[in-house]
Amino acid sequence: MTSFDLDFPIRFEHCDVAGIVFYPRYFLMFNQMVEDWFAGPLETPWAALHFEERRGTPMVDIKVHFQKPSRMGDVLRLSMTVLKIGRSAIDLAIVGSCNGENRLKAKLTVVYTDLDKLKSVRIPEPLAARMADFMAETDIPANVP
Amino acid sequence: MTSFDLDFPIRFEHCDVAGIVFYPRYFLMFNQMVEDWFAGPLETPWAALHFEERRGTPMVDIKVHFQKPSRMGDVLRLSMTVLKIGRSAIDLAIVGSCNGENRLKAKLTVVYTDLDKLKSVRIPEPLAARMADFMAETDIPANVP
Amino acid sequence: MTSFDLDFPIRFEHCDVAGIVFYPRYFLMFNQMVEDWFAGPLETPWAALHFEERRGTPMVDIKVHFQKPSRMGDVLRLSMTVLKIGRSAIDLAIVGSCNGENRLKAKLTVVYTDLDKLKSVRIPEPLAARMADFMAETDIPANVP
Amino acid sequence: MTSFDLDFPIRFEHCDVAGIVFYPRYFLMFNQMVEDWFAGPLETPWAALHFEERRGTPMVDIKVHFQKPSRMGDVLRLSMTVLKIGRSAIDLAIVGSCNGENRLKAKLTVVYTDLDKLKSVRIPEPLAARMADFMAETDIPANVP
Repeated sequence: MTSFDLDFPIRFEHCDVAGIVFYPRYFLMFNQMVEDWFAGPLETPWAALHFEERRGTPMVDIKVHFQKPSRMGDVLRLSMTVLKIGRSAIDLAIVGSCNGENRLKAKLTVVYTDLDKLKSVRIPEPLAARMADFMAETDIPANVP
Repeated sequence: MTSFDLDFPIRFEHCDVAGIVFYPRYFLMFNQMVEDWFAGPLETPWAALHFEERRGTPMVDIKVHFQKPSRMGDVLRLSMTVLKIGRSAIDLAIVGSCNGENRLKAKLTVVYTDLDKLKSVRIPEPLAARMADFMAETDIPANVP
Repeated sequence: MTSFDLDFPIRFEHCDVAGIVFYPRYFLMFNQMVEDWFAGPLETPWAALHFEERRGTPMVDIKVHFQKPSRMGDVLRLSMTVLKIGRSAIDLAIVGSCNGENRLKAKLTVVYTDLDKLKSVRIPEPLAARMADFMAETDIPANVP
Repeated sequence: MTSFDLDFPIRFEHCDVAGIVFYPRYFLMFNQMVEDWFAGPLETPWAALHFEERRGTPMVDIKVHFQKPSRMGDVLRLSMTVLKIGRSAIDLAIVGSCNGENRLKAKLTVVYTDLDKLKSVRIPEPLAARMADFMAETDIPANVP
């Protein structure tokens, strides 16, 4: 199994009056995880996907358990694995940690979608095959909220 | 039962290249629901709560099921009810609709917190009593993701 | 002269670790001013303008002088007037105040644009006529940064 | 002269329904430019600056001229130089380009501030000395809006 990992420096713009990340900002990080995963290992940059192929991956279900707050100056590591690849739906797990401490865990379901009809469509085979490289071991889903 | 309702005009700033709400923006709306509920019926504006009492309500768990996209120009009605009031945790349900169509449903758990110690504290009795006015009927939780 | 006025409650989401508005959030308020001005007195809601007429009003120039910070809990009144209506460019002034104190002043230039060609186009006469109702007196521009 | 440069991939989150950057998002990039400049060559990470020293650099004046739109998939290079270092105010110029095309130019004035009193204070000498390494040549200010 390979996970897709990104480090997010916790910036001024993420933080609220208490100096910790304002939770809606985490969802921008989750979106960036999926975007960079597509642009990198999945070899499918979103600009071409959206503008030329008219395909996108809207969020259908999301669950997040926030375990510990993150503060300005922290570097939050997000690690993403694939839980399940369906006909058009992809289940993803994201865990967040900093200095060995668990900060959050999330489960996301995105759906491969025709942006003109706003209907789900089958994930192309080569794309699904590249996604499968990030399939989680069976013991990972237990960690997911 | 009373629900706490707000209408959100879907604005340019909420929408992505497909002309529908970019999902992280919904969490700003959820936060505003809680903020305005505190400022209004709960009689506890956040400025005083945060700056003077040093209390806040960070998000601990959130689940959202996005049923249908919302487009620029829609008016999304969010309706919030209380599912459970614990010692310091409050479970909230939010349903979103537009023109009689269900758009999303969410379950949020926020925790009444000492902002200096970042530890949960007991919800003051008068505040909990005002929250109880928004307790959902037993059949509502079934609708929640 | 009529100005177009909106009151913005300063919310949790606007504020930074110092408890004052994080300046990029003001630009969302400015955008909302223009959007609601179009939807209201200009009778040109952006959903129809963008999706059907394929016209928009991108920002070309903006100057802001931040005079005093605004804090969570403040209600910031923004007042907008028109400084100049050109063939396709519109110059707007916005002043922000709270409790009689000046908080900010801004000058914005937006351009009526064909969204497909990304080129400026002439403002339709009826739209320009409605904009002219908000033309500022000659002594207003002196206040602008 | 050295400029402080960062490359910003234009992401899904930055873009509006026309597929180009929604202009308030640029100000998050400008803020990140200043934040990373402090954290890097100025050796003054904001977490320590804000939480321990109780100093910050609020924006006082900003002017931006948007020359060309940037689209999802572009990589926007922002280059920042120092125009002037005063007692507490710092004037900064930012130019943005992509593939050799000028996209925007901006002038920012930030003020070194005591966050508790919300009053300007003198920039510490060693910090001002490090800022001076990024002082622009005299012909740069002419490019600024």
